[in-house]
Amino acid sequence: MGNTFGHLFRVTTFGESHGGGIGVVIDGCPPRIAISEADIQRELDRRRPGQSKLTTQRKEEDQCEILSGIFEGKTLGTPIAIAVRNKDARPEDYSEIAAKFRPSHADYTYEAKYGIRNWQGGGRASARETVGRVAAGAVAEKVLSTLYPDFEIVTYVAQIHDIVAKINRSTVKMKDVEKNIVRCPDVAEAKRMISLIEQVRDEGDSIGGVIECVARGLAAGIGEPVFDKLEADLAKAMLSIPATKGFEIGSGFAATRMRGSQHNDPFEMRGEKIRTATNNSGGVQGGISNGEDIYFRVAFKPPATIAFQQKTVTSSKQDSELAARGRHDPCVLPRAVPIVEAMAALVLCDHALRHHAIGARLE
Amino acid sequence: MGNTFGHLFRVTTFGESHGGGIGVVIDGCPPRIAISEADIQRELDRRRPGQSKLTTQRKEEDQCEILSGIFEGKTLGTPIAIAVRNKDARPEDYSEIAAKFRPSHADYTYEAKYGIRNWQGGGRASARETVGRVAAGAVAEKVLSTLYPDFEIVTYVAQIHDIVAKINRSTVKMKDVEKNIVRCPDVAEAKRMISLIEQVRDEGDSIGGVIECVARGLAAGIGEPVFDKLEADLAKAMLSIPATKGFEIGSGFAATRMRGSQHNDPFEMRGEKIRTATNNSGGVQGGISNGEDIYFRVAFKPPATIAFQQKTVTSSKQDSELAARGRHDPCVLPRAVPIVEAMAALVLCDHALRHHAIGARLE
Amino acid sequence: MGNTFGHLFRVTTFGESHGGGIGVVIDGCPPRIAISEADIQRELDRRRPGQSKLTTQRKEEDQCEILSGIFEGKTLGTPIAIAVRNKDARPEDYSEIAAKFRPSHADYTYEAKYGIRNWQGGGRASARETVGRVAAGAVAEKVLSTLYPDFEIVTYVAQIHDIVAKINRSTVKMKDVEKNIVRCPDVAEAKRMISLIEQVRDEGDSIGGVIECVARGLAAGIGEPVFDKLEADLAKAMLSIPATKGFEIGSGFAATRMRGSQHNDPFEMRGEKIRTATNNSGGVQGGISNGEDIYFRVAFKPPATIAFQQKTVTSSKQDSELAARGRHDPCVLPRAVPIVEAMAALVLCDHALRHHAIGARLE
Amino acid sequence: MGNTFGHLFRVTTFGESHGGGIGVVIDGCPPRIAISEADIQRELDRRRPGQSKLTTQRKEEDQCEILSGIFEGKTLGTPIAIAVRNKDARPEDYSEIAAKFRPSHADYTYEAKYGIRNWQGGGRASARETVGRVAAGAVAEKVLSTLYPDFEIVTYVAQIHDIVAKINRSTVKMKDVEKNIVRCPDVAEAKRMISLIEQVRDEGDSIGGVIECVARGLAAGIGEPVFDKLEADLAKAMLSIPATKGFEIGSGFAATRMRGSQHNDPFEMRGEKIRTATNNSGGVQGGISNGEDIYFRVAFKPPATIAFQQKTVTSSKQDSELAARGRHDPCVLPRAVPIVEAMAALVLCDHALRHHAIGARLE
Repeated sequence: MGNTFGHLFRVTTFGESHGGGIGVVIDGCPPRIAISEADIQRELDRRRPGQSKLTTQRKEEDQCEILSGIFEGKTLGTPIAIAVRNKDARPEDYSEIAAKFRPSHADYTYEAKYGIRNWQGGGRASARETVGRVAAGAVAEKVLSTLYPDFEIVTYVAQIHDIVAKINRSTVKMKDVEKNIVRCPDVAEAKRMISLIEQVRDEGDSIGGVIECVARGLAAGIGEPVFDKLEADLAKAMLSIPATKGFEIGSGFAATRMRGSQHNDPFEMRGEKIRTATNNSGGVQGGISNGEDIYFRVAFKPPATIAFQQKTVTSSKQDSELAARGRHDPCVLPRAVPIVEAMAALVLCDHALRHHAIGARLE
Repeated sequence: MGNTFGHLFRVTTFGESHGGGIGVVIDGCPPRIAISEADIQRELDRRRPGQSKLTTQRKEEDQCEILSGIFEGKTLGTPIAIAVRNKDARPEDYSEIAAKFRPSHADYTYEAKYGIRNWQGGGRASARETVGRVAAGAVAEKVLSTLYPDFEIVTYVAQIHDIVAKINRSTVKMKDVEKNIVRCPDVAEAKRMISLIEQVRDEGDSIGGVIECVARGLAAGIGEPVFDKLEADLAKAMLSIPATKGFEIGSGFAATRMRGSQHNDPFEMRGEKIRTATNNSGGVQGGISNGEDIYFRVAFKPPATIAFQQKTVTSSKQDSELAARGRHDPCVLPRAVPIVEAMAALVLCDHALRHHAIGARLE
Repeated sequence: MGNTFGHLFRVTTFGESHGGGIGVVIDGCPPRIAISEADIQRELDRRRPGQSKLTTQRKEEDQCEILSGIFEGKTLGTPIAIAVRNKDARPEDYSEIAAKFRPSHADYTYEAKYGIRNWQGGGRASARETVGRVAAGAVAEKVLSTLYPDFEIVTYVAQIHDIVAKINRSTVKMKDVEKNIVRCPDVAEAKRMISLIEQVRDEGDSIGGVIECVARGLAAGIGEPVFDKLEADLAKAMLSIPATKGFEIGSGFAATRMRGSQHNDPFEMRGEKIRTATNNSGGVQGGISNGEDIYFRVAFKPPATIAFQQKTVTSSKQDSELAARGRHDPCVLPRAVPIVEAMAALVLCDHALRHHAIGARLE
Repeated sequence: MGNTFGHLFRVTTFGESHGGGIGVVIDGCPPRIAISEADIQRELDRRRPGQSKLTTQRKEEDQCEILSGIFEGKTLGTPIAIAVRNKDARPEDYSEIAAKFRPSHADYTYEAKYGIRNWQGGGRASARETVGRVAAGAVAEKVLSTLYPDFEIVTYVAQIHDIVAKINRSTVKMKDVEKNIVRCPDVAEAKRMISLIEQVRDEGDSIGGVIECVARGLAAGIGEPVFDKLEADLAKAMLSIPATKGFEIGSGFAATRMRGSQHNDPFEMRGEKIRTATNNSGGVQGGISNGEDIYFRVAFKPPATIAFQQKTVTSSKQDSELAARGRHDPCVLPRAVPIVEAMAALVLCDHALRHHAIGARLE
């Protein structure tokens, strides 16, 4: 259980790191949305391993195939199944970990839960699982752009380890993000980030950082009260991404040190529109969008796979040691940018459809 | 939509700040769990307004009534409905806001979504809605204690504005929390927190802070892979609480500045048990519990209701001004402690049942 | 679990036959629908015990109270909670069955499932549970009438035991149904039905029959492919009503003896509309409405409570005997008419909202 | 939406009649269940077109491929994705119906719902969609056999048109079903059925019938009260199968002509077990299994595809005529037997897991 996300725009992913393949079934996509394999492939290529010197060198083309749900270039309203084959699998790299639990990986917890695990490359817990999310996110963005012509979503690396980028959140564009391999729009800091990641990689260690995401152009009124607040579903979406440890929306943790008189966002008329003068709320009030930019930040820990000798235990409960093998990323953030973006799109698309169910017709 | 939480232990809340009443229906509670109205009332009293000088002076006894699902002191397995009457409602306090949107409240977004709102005291967006959550959380804790005899959950204020408490997360107990009205186990800092809240209240302003929660005594193996990871559902649960802006589990945002070699939690045998030497993971790896303490932190913003004159707009789209009326809390954290605890219990209870569905029988 | 129905228009019922009360929470109701307690009470009165000489003489006024979700006579979009108190409870009537399982009741199966049961009057398995359904159905009908101005739903008794009514399904109206206490629009057969029910009642026995339901005025396009076909959800809704044993839509079981050349419904243009010349399909093709009348039939068994001495076993596994006590209906159909109607309305309303989510906006 | 079935054992199917392929993702399958492609293929072969002279001659081998969720012959607890390629597609056979609605097919309703349809062979509304159900059903049966060693499910043709078989429901076995190509255990009537189907096929017409299903060896206590009654979910499952028009459990529609004194199933001790002397209830009371055989019947209409010239309309709203082309079955029942069986297994497996979630551990 737990492999389906969304209430109306429902995404079910499948697949292990090694095995026949991975993919996704999207149920609830509105009909007559133009979409092609190229649209999806573009996003998969942003997530793909081996795309730059910063990432794992596993050679996966991640070529997607649409099995259903699209007819003559348009969505049918029926389930869209998208599959990607696993090709460059090297199970032999993982033979040692068949009997040992890698620290801070999910080897032990999967064993504890299921009494069985596919130990080849992390199995279902591998970040390779996110291929299906990214493919689905590409479809969700198409739907959102159809519903809201001004919709755009920009996601970027805001911090790597202790290097913090300076980015104008209100104006940054997707093209600024894709200018460099670390996906940070601050060109100067991006260079320092790249150097640091290379250095850490050469040391056999790993580092984390922060990804920020801004969604613009949504209407006010999206989100559901109480449990399915927009920020609640965004938080769930982000914490479901491997290696994430935190989420904050709008003012976030900084809000804890502000006073209400500083933090409140006064309303004001701007033209015919009700707007807020500031946006500490992050575009959401009471769980519902207010028409301002929605922005949030996600904390990523350093990847668990490092080249050092580490203490661990075996599946037969003996103390032991283990040095990582297999190909891996010294820092997941550059490849996690399209994943964060995809998950944000899934949440927003689902909530947009939920809002239309009750709102669009009865007016 | 959005008023139901959980997959197997399902909680549906209802009710506005003003109106007949508020409450909850719990579906999926296992049978033969001993529970009484007193068990639930005890938790409601911790959330109740007017419990100390730090909280709103609205006089609500929040006396609960169990309408169904309990027979001769035990759960039947059928839905448990719990209702609380609204008594000390003063709609007249809110007449001005019928036509004006309070800054950083949900007045405008509810209007944008629904084209109608109950403007009396915030309606459904009022934190009064959490009565149902706390009642359900009391039931969830009973279930968890039945399943896991060593289960305990301790929740406390860790920070108010810039005052940060020093608390030993591994040893702190519920009784330490309830020693003072701010619910902070660090007695020295608690006094400073109380003074600061009183000062801010007298100034007509408001402040936020951080609540931390630790759950102990759960088995390894609880949580579902991919989307319904334990930390993902906890994040959703916490961001669904009014006034929250952030969530972090284990090392959280601090992990972004650590290296993998520092962050990894080595496994080791301790007696017959597989344990970790450190717990940066926060008790969860790959979305599944590893048997260590589960701990996380939640950021609360300063409440939006302040006594100052603020800029805003009217529902007929005119610029205007507004000064808060109505009773309110200068700082929600002391009353939010049982809410965070309740939501944590709901997530853990739901996941425990989900785990039993596939795990308990086939071994 | 299992006490929630619907995907977007979600209904959660609660309550046992004896205990504090019963009721329902409706989540997902569109906003700004005019509804009053009187609208709901009207339907509850059609289901109420003691309404005629044909029904149980239990004295329950079933006075409903709306606790939330309605403001100044209109729905808010927030959960609508409706409660009804249990008043004329006589647990002493049931003392014998605390230790014996009534044949063809749910006493034994609840005990087998939960290891505990509220033996007073059937507990959660009592048809008293349907109060919440009928209240919710009244709201659903209001929504449907708002969405589809020509919408109407007519439900009636078509057969009692071996007495089969002749009814013109295309023209029958609600007022024809309410003309007599058995709720059969065929006046002549209705009289015979009433006599038969009285005779059977006097003999201490019970009888069943068939209820038919017609929904008119819905648009084409409502229903979801594959698993959530309109007829599938109607079937589930009907078989969830106590005492039902069968469901058929359109031609139903009679279709099994027809040839395709007889059964097919040819399309034809009628004015500007695509219509079918016949309606063996029952208004649904491939799970989706085609704009014709939707009609179906539901089989009800004779109630299990009879005045005869019956063989049974005790909860301590001894063979025993039991004669029914407590008040009960010799034939449930007259009171089941509003229940069938309510469940049909819930299915149609839920599917109408689901259709709008993807269909209304992207055109 | 509507392509997912089940609450804990969740099945999502995808695929159109023509296009890349069809398949299923199963989420929530317990771990460590032995299953192979051969286990699944065996069931798919029973559903496969071209298996006998009675079925469509479309040549599809329906060779399945397991993409994920199985490791070294056992389930991992992760999603099991199974795909089947479409091979013998002949879209040219369907060119005429691109612009005409086939009577009693779903062409018109899909167009009305989505404003687009894959007109090649019925698209998503084709019974080819059931490949995914049958594959998932094979997995569900494995789970049920693991949970309940005596579990077996026997499904067979009970009636073709006006030919009614005589079958001892209590003793009939799977091997009796597979003895002939019509899948009717009454050998004499099976011969007559085969002759009739051949005759009808030669006439270009089609016929329907009744399939009966018996599940044995389940424990008492499976099923959920109120909306998710076992019979309600079975009814939904069956009415979701293409071409079905009715469902009845136990005594079914015949119950409408019985008296309570005849219909009630007296309890009696048999050895250490509580049993019923008769089984009009069909193994379910109050929505929960009582340990007796669960049996039900499903009505299938004659297939809509016939060789006759039929009246219809075009998508541009002109009256027109149409004669069927494409390959098709004169009677779907022989191939529908494994589909009914699969859907029954999905319902029972899902409910078994739901029962374990609350029942297995707390005793």
